Amino acid sequence: MSRDGLLTLTIQPYGIRSRVKKNVRLFDALSDAGLAVRSECGGKGTCGKCRVVIKDRSSCASVGNLKAELARSELKSGYRLACGCKLVSDATVYIPEESRLTARKFLIEGTERPVSVDPAVRKVFLRVPQPTLRDIRSDAQRIFDELKGTCAIEAINIDYQLLRRLPRILRDSSWKVTATVWDNKEIISLEKGDTSKKAYGIAADIGTSKLIIYLTNLLDGQTVATESSENPLIKHGEDVISRISYALKSDANLEEMRQLIINCLNAMCAKICNENSVDPTHIYEMTIVGNTAMHHLFLGIQPKHLGLSPYVPVTSDPIDQKARNLSLEVNPAANVHVFPIIAGFVGGDAVADIISTGIYESAELSMIMDIGTNTEIILGDKHGLAACSCASGPAFEGAHIKFGMKAVTGAIEKLEIEPDGNRVNYQTVGNAKPVGLCGSAIIDAVANLLRCQLIDKEGKFTENIRSRRMTKTNGKRAFILVSKKEGATREITITQADIREIQLAKAAIFSGCSVLMKKKHVKPRSIKRLYIAGAFGNYLDLTNAKMIGLLPDIPTPRIALVGNAAGAGARMALISRELRHIAASVSRKTDYVELALEPNFQSEFTMAMFFPHRDLQRFASLKKLL
Amino acid sequence: MSRDGLLTLTIQPYGIRSRVKKNVRLFDALSDAGLAVRSECGGKGTCGKCRVVIKDRSSCASVGNLKAELARSELKSGYRLACGCKLVSDATVYIPEESRLTARKFLIEGTERPVSVDPAVRKVFLRVPQPTLRDIRSDAQRIFDELKGTCAIEAINIDYQLLRRLPRILRDSSWKVTATVWDNKEIISLEKGDTSKKAYGIAADIGTSKLIIYLTNLLDGQTVATESSENPLIKHGEDVISRISYALKSDANLEEMRQLIINCLNAMCAKICNENSVDPTHIYEMTIVGNTAMHHLFLGIQPKHLGLSPYVPVTSDPIDQKARNLSLEVNPAANVHVFPIIAGFVGGDAVADIISTGIYESAELSMIMDIGTNTEIILGDKHGLAACSCASGPAFEGAHIKFGMKAVTGAIEKLEIEPDGNRVNYQTVGNAKPVGLCGSAIIDAVANLLRCQLIDKEGKFTENIRSRRMTKTNGKRAFILVSKKEGATREITITQADIREIQLAKAAIFSGCSVLMKKKHVKPRSIKRLYIAGAFGNYLDLTNAKMIGLLPDIPTPRIALVGNAAGAGARMALISRELRHIAASVSRKTDYVELALEPNFQSEFTMAMFFPHRDLQRFASLKKLL
Repeated sequence: MSRDGLLTLTIQPYGIRSRVKKNVRLFDALSDAGLAVRSECGGKGTCGKCRVVIKDRSSCASVGNLKAELARSELKSGYRLACGCKLVSDATVYIPEESRLTARKFLIEGTERPVSVDPAVRKVFLRVPQPTLRDIRSDAQRIFDELKGTCAIEAINIDYQLLRRLPRILRDSSWKVTATVWDNKEIISLEKGDTSKKAYGIAADIGTSKLIIYLTNLLDGQTVATESSENPLIKHGEDVISRISYALKSDANLEEMRQLIINCLNAMCAKICNENSVDPTHIYEMTIVGNTAMHHLFLGIQPKHLGLSPYVPVTSDPIDQKARNLSLEVNPAANVHVFPIIAGFVGGDAVADIISTGIYESAELSMIMDIGTNTEIILGDKHGLAACSCASGPAFEGAHIKFGMKAVTGAIEKLEIEPDGNRVNYQTVGNAKPVGLCGSAIIDAVANLLRCQLIDKEGKFTENIRSRRMTKTNGKRAFILVSKKEGATREITITQADIREIQLAKAAIFSGCSVLMKKKHVKPRSIKRLYIAGAFGNYLDLTNAKMIGLLPDIPTPRIALVGNAAGAGARMALISRELRHIAASVSRKTDYVELALEPNFQSEFTMAMFFPHRDLQRFASLKKLL
Repeated sequence: MSRDGLLTLTIQPYGIRSRVKKNVRLFDALSDAGLAVRSECGGKGTCGKCRVVIKDRSSCASVGNLKAELARSELKSGYRLACGCKLVSDATVYIPEESRLTARKFLIEGTERPVSVDPAVRKVFLRVPQPTLRDIRSDAQRIFDELKGTCAIEAINIDYQLLRRLPRILRDSSWKVTATVWDNKEIISLEKGDTSKKAYGIAADIGTSKLIIYLTNLLDGQTVATESSENPLIKHGEDVISRISYALKSDANLEEMRQLIINCLNAMCAKICNENSVDPTHIYEMTIVGNTAMHHLFLGIQPKHLGLSPYVPVTSDPIDQKARNLSLEVNPAANVHVFPIIAGFVGGDAVADIISTGIYESAELSMIMDIGTNTEIILGDKHGLAACSCASGPAFEGAHIKFGMKAVTGAIEKLEIEPDGNRVNYQTVGNAKPVGLCGSAIIDAVANLLRCQLIDKEGKFTENIRSRRMTKTNGKRAFILVSKKEGATREITITQADIREIQLAKAAIFSGCSVLMKKKHVKPRSIKRLYIAGAFGNYLDLTNAKMIGLLPDIPTPRIALVGNAAGAGARMALISRELRHIAASVSRKTDYVELALEPNFQSEFTMAMFFPHRDLQRFASLKKLL
């Protein structure tokens, strides 16, 4: 016990120390330290959920006859109920996984990953002793000392702009303030009174088409709300190459683009805060993921050389900058953590995919395919990862496809051609009248044409088609999917040119997979888990996707559609310092494979132009269907 | 030897590693690493000054018959001439004190302190390999790798605003750039071509009356030029208390004062750079010293509470901020190091005094008196220091004295009254017609009046004065020092009120000394060294100063007038990281003695009102004179 009569409670595995009064219930001490344990009964000793392990059993005493809930062997191992004991001397307590209230499960379809809540930001309410002639420590020093005394944080710095306001804040609040400490190093905010329960962060996913932000409660790791917006850079082109072309023309263009992104993020933050009654100054940290081009534009870094061979980024390391330096309108001293990137076309979004799927720590060989205009593919396990980027083009997002569209109301998201080739069943988003085809339906259409032998393995409409749905536009053959008579707002067809686009796109992706697998000496059947992230919704038909040769021939139960895995990675890193370090390490260690340098890339591409592939051995499981 | 065929040369005691080609002369390798050794012959093997110690003798081979200059015993101990050997394998070399070209002596009158040049800033010329499809490292990464490869600097960060300009700088300079690294951590500048020989810093002393800056070459530690200016805050009062009063009225006032200081520093920097043909962007670091009030105003921190009991500062730690955050117009990413402070009235100037006199590491008990409107006194040795601040007022700067003035042209700086009390000999600044009295002459005048028994020990003009120089103004007695007839521009007198001012000022200072000595259980005769810093020029008559009881009774040979010791401390810290760390540690460890809390302060003050003191035992050496 120290001179002030307080005990030191060390809480593992977090390594957090807290100063507590003698004879306080461990249950309450943990709660005060911001590390409340699970409990259904609220600490009444009946539910038995608040199990902890006491290192030195003599440091705690029983507060009643509550031990009945634990087995004799557990008691021997040091297990106790936190609500059933009180602290009598300095103690070290371990909170086992099962008792951690703060372990938050991230639900990604087909997978679930628990993340221990350990954000870089900590808020602590302090009663700072006032100066006297006998205690003339500086304002800053007495805050440092208080932080150290009450929760063993050895902060060594105060944000400079905050320091300038320090004397007034302390005196206006009668020396009762809440300090926000970043990474146990710097005090970034100081607020009047006790605001320790108001700690928020924002994870942002800056996608090529869409910006999504997640408002997160940093105390419990919960995502409070989500907000999305079209990427304002769409006015400078739908794909990153057009945007890079615009940015490289002048510094003014680059700055315009940077401001468009920042203004959009600021508007989204203001909206999400307003709708959830959160004060924007209570947002103390942000994490940012995006592909390399969006990463550069967000930071105001010229992306010119990303568009020119050999496609090098300006920086690949994670970047931490204060919000005020980036003109982001949250707490001005909030840290903005920008994800590291792997290579010119494998960005922070791919790193976030790796983090959220957890493939970097899996013993099982896994693959991620993040399908978009650029498709990133990552292959490996805990022993090492390799990544490549395929120029797949925007066909699967509906672009360059005659009736292609995004998955908005009226888009056909799922379809089936009956074996006779005459009847088509379909489903639209919002059950509206069909307007066009989104990515998943385009795949369905091609796979069904193939299954009905309306197109051949080279993708050409077969010569002697009996279907009355065959038509010609400008002398080119096309297949009517939904006619006006059948209820479409316009006659929706799939053309020979559409099929060619799909063929090129899927060949680009599949040849990337093949090269990566060869590089790692791996066969599809060795891949225990395939994660499909990105553009597709929940309606991608995996069998159809394999049928056209978009995905390698992996048993469907091993495939998981994980949606916005990049956004999930950003949210996880926001509440876990450890995952942030892992992201930095993973981004450095992942081997980037430059497809253009691979001697067998061209032949793989040519073979992948067939449906599903020139080498049918690679799609053995589809034999019955083909 | 590593794969690139380069050897690693480790240079001690600096711990700097350098990559060098095999068979390069050690003399040249050291020079290339920026740690050239002494040499008079330029490496021809004749002067014998470039002595170094080789750790493993087999790592070097002789390049000729040059060893003759070293004694056999020296050769046995590993001594070699750097110009006489070449590197054949990885080597560690120690540069002994006597061979360090970089040890710079700081001349302070009466003392001399060598400082090893080890600035936080290092400039390195790099030939960065261009990216190819097989080498797609980011722009930043290839600079990091090059820094590590050529000089073992493991920088981990690039200034964010610099990062934004990085791709253009690299390509405009054909990948040949000079990187400036701060504290082996962050790249703060990147310049086209080889500018490694242009590295400057500025040390600034923000005094209450005067701002002084020193332009320093960071390569050799040499002070290139000095510039000074009146403190622009003088318009808001000559003393810090009036300035604090102005600042506390509104944030606008505080901001106005901050800008006045910054603008003044910027104008001085622009002038000194222009006059010395130095590009302001080649100034990579600044050190700032000042009393606590000036420290707060410079940083834009409200100094209000420095003026109110219990007089606490807002922060006492050293502060490092980038120049752009402080609006200082040097390299925008330059680090500005603001000295730590000890207490509300013992500022960074006192810390700099401690650093430049070196009393913190002296085995001998020493005292520093930095005499000004506030007089700081520091007493101690390497085992510990104590400091106090005395409200001495501006009398010794000529203020509140009828004919007082600063030590400018026409000021009497030295005077003597002949024993008959009728003849006065004097000397003026610039040998001009006498206009008034500066500090040293005021002390001379009082001491001489005392010696001639024209005033008594209580400071009153004695009743029966025979001197014809006695006069009366407004019924108050005064002594004519120089009449108009004798050449003065006006009749210069010293009045009873003047003597009272001096009495109060010296009593404030001396009682501070007494309390501090009692606190440390020390007698004046135990003090081996007394440093007088601050307002006085070189003409302070030490005997007279003791005579009036301003200084404790310490043998004159032990007293050194060190002038602007604070400015010297700022210059030293600019070229020595070690001294900066020492300053931080010294500022924390120095015990501040609050005189108002000392029970014997009032009685000490009363006794010190006498000339030289009520207790004559304390001035035993002056017995003959009194």
